[in-house]
Amino acid sequence: MLKMIEVVGTSSSGFSEAVRDAVDRVSAEGNKIHFFQVVEQRGAVREDKIREFQVVLKIAFEA
Amino acid sequence: MLKMIEVVGTSSSGFSEAVRDAVDRVSAEGNKIHFFQVVEQRGAVREDKIREFQVVLKIAFEA
Amino acid sequence: MLKMIEVVGTSSSGFSEAVRDAVDRVSAEGNKIHFFQVVEQRGAVREDKIREFQVVLKIAFEA
Amino acid sequence: MLKMIEVVGTSSSGFSEAVRDAVDRVSAEGNKIHFFQVVEQRGAVREDKIREFQVVLKIAFEA
Amino acid sequence: MLKMIEVVGTSSSGFSEAVRDAVDRVSAEGNKIHFFQVVEQRGAVREDKIREFQVVLKIAFEA
Amino acid sequence: MLKMIEVVGTSSSGFSEAVRDAVDRVSAEGNKIHFFQVVEQRGAVREDKIREFQVVLKIAFEA
Amino acid sequence: MLKMIEVVGTSSSGFSEAVRDAVDRVSAEGNKIHFFQVVEQRGAVREDKIREFQVVLKIAFEA
Amino acid sequence: MLKMIEVVGTSSSGFSEAVRDAVDRVSAEGNKIHFFQVVEQRGAVREDKIREFQVVLKIAFEA
Amino acid sequence: MLKMIEVVGTSSSGFSEAVRDAVDRVSAEGNKIHFFQVVEQRGAVREDKIREFQVVLKIAFEA
Amino acid sequence: MLKMIEVVGTSSSGFSEAVRDAVDRVSAEGNKIHFFQVVEQRGAVREDKIREFQVVLKIAFEA
Amino acid sequence: MLKMIEVVGTSSSGFSEAVRDAVDRVSAEGNKIHFFQVVEQRGAVREDKIREFQVVLKIAFEA
Amino acid sequence: MLKMIEVVGTSSSGFSEAVRDAVDRVSAEGNKIHFFQVVEQRGAVREDKIREFQVVLKIAFEA
Repeated sequence: MLKMIEVVGTSSSGFSEAVRDAVDRVSAEGNKIHFFQVVEQRGAVREDKIREFQVVLKIAFEA
Repeated sequence: MLKMIEVVGTSSSGFSEAVRDAVDRVSAEGNKIHFFQVVEQRGAVREDKIREFQVVLKIAFEA
Repeated sequence: MLKMIEVVGTSSSGFSEAVRDAVDRVSAEGNKIHFFQVVEQRGAVREDKIREFQVVLKIAFEA
Repeated sequence: MLKMIEVVGTSSSGFSEAVRDAVDRVSAEGNKIHFFQVVEQRGAVREDKIREFQVVLKIAFEA
Repeated sequence: MLKMIEVVGTSSSGFSEAVRDAVDRVSAEGNKIHFFQVVEQRGAVREDKIREFQVVLKIAFEA
Repeated sequence: MLKMIEVVGTSSSGFSEAVRDAVDRVSAEGNKIHFFQVVEQRGAVREDKIREFQVVLKIAFEA
Repeated sequence: MLKMIEVVGTSSSGFSEAVRDAVDRVSAEGNKIHFFQVVEQRGAVREDKIREFQVVLKIAFEA
Repeated sequence: MLKMIEVVGTSSSGFSEAVRDAVDRVSAEGNKIHFFQVVEQRGAVREDKIREFQVVLKIAFEA
Repeated sequence: MLKMIEVVGTSSSGFSEAVRDAVDRVSAEGNKIHFFQVVEQRGAVREDKIREFQVVLKIAFEA
Repeated sequence: MLKMIEVVGTSSSGFSEAVRDAVDRVSAEGNKIHFFQVVEQRGAVREDKIREFQVVLKIAFEA
Repeated sequence: MLKMIEVVGTSSSGFSEAVRDAVDRVSAEGNKIHFFQVVEQRGAVREDKIREFQVVLKIAFEA
Repeated sequence: MLKMIEVVGTSSSGFSEAVRDAVDRVSAEGNKIHFFQVVEQRGAVREDKIREFQVVLKIAFEA
């Protein structure tokens, strides 16, 4: 069975990098990921600069 | 009249590249594209790495 | 109080760059931005090439 | 950059006329409009008659 | 208290007329209507012609 | 089986006329249409006037 | 005119049977049904078993 | 590249059978299908009986 | 308190069976399930046959 | 079978009180309510004060 | 014509109070508000306590 | 990285209290919560009284 968790990936570079961040972290916990889906794309700004791109992802892994 | 088709673009680099992939392929079939809309952003993972970013796109072309 | 405005950022490079474009322009008007949310991702094509990636964003700023 | 504002156009005739009402008023304020999107269609009824068709629109203009 | 019913209005002329059709019929049943909201816009085609525009409406009335 | 295509109908008059435009063109290609659904209603403005109402439609035809 | 009511059909067998349950009950009240739409699919579980599949349906009937 | 078409599958038995109907017909046209997504579940009723379950599906195939 | 997890149930028979598959597996892990909600219905096709119906479910259990 | 009606509850105090208002009124008509779902939260303002909080609710009752 | 702005109201007490906060502030700027709609309900937590309830509102005022 | 879990908070008083209930319980499990989002607002009724307000929440915590 696949289970899906929802996580927030972040990156100062862009949305695709924020996705890699989340996938890397969830993999590093020992989960065997099959696929992901983007749920929401947001970002934080500080002093006129984008501090981080944030992607809310559903990640499906074997369980 | 504009017709819209829905396709899945893929790239190992990121979402924007996956969009280019789809636009290039639909153009190569001889369609005169006007605009596109992102419908869904997903991806496939194999052995802890993102194998491909997948973007489901609606592409509007002259017909 | 935070107010939210909706703007269209554009870039010939990709979606993340289109977001930066919008955040830079709204900041340049003197607004203190806190965060942004992606509402829609689209793009314009001319002569078989992506002329611009377009991101409709909600931008929240102090007011 | 394009900014989008949300307004309510009204008409006793129908939805398309309510859209014209909103576009005319926002143009009359000196805004150079590019496009609009319908967000919601509603209406008010008084004494068994439709008093007004109401269209909530997003209007995109140069800013 | 306001109650809301959902009905399908139809017209061979257009969507605004289909709304009038539904409002007239629900009023004719003796209901005091306050407002309506468009839920869905569809239509039926027969022999290459639009036979009817169909509007699914929520109608709010005193109860 | 019914297949559904998505097209953009346009008219300078209004949304219902934009739907007729799309249905006429898809019929003219020899398709036997059963029904349609409105997906999105937009429009283009030039020099303070609505140049065209645009309706994105799903059209279901025999195939 | 068609009116639409929303009901919850249930079955211990599956979703399609839950739809039949709702259609049968609404017909048994003397309503002439034209069509239905699925709004939501849920279910109740007791002691590790699915006690019932639940389908929230909109049912359109002549009125 | 994968393309997605939208079709309506039907069955007098249930929703899963309506999906099979659509997949079988699209395959019979020579398309190599990868996956499908349910878009909408509806049905037609005649003389108090469900005449057909209808499933609107997106079907993704190689192209 | 109830917690909700999202899982993918699969079955070669149909959607209702895919739901049973997911509920059985989550129960077998010792969770006391109260109810479930269908989030998405998809499926995989291989060599012109439906290999599996897939149902993404939210499952609520005591925690 | 459960039927669901949609009503608008109102209160000058807040959203939860507006829900109580609607539940009390529908119960007072002799309906045995099982559950409710919030559909929309709105409100009316007069002379700079919130005149009423409005909650559109679906209420499920035995029928 | 009514214009709609989107703002974030906050309160340490609850959602209804966060709405009052936003309505009060927008009124204090001299706007004649007619109605509001809730778009999103969120909140921030610090050291295990809800620091603020946040309500994203559309506020319609005369313009 | 932030992870998001979905839980159901309940209260006999109102929606804001149901949110506090969920946040308190998830905090009590030792999770460092950053923010929450309301997904759905429902409630159970017994003998004409609201037995509980139910809020489905996404809660984001450090992980």
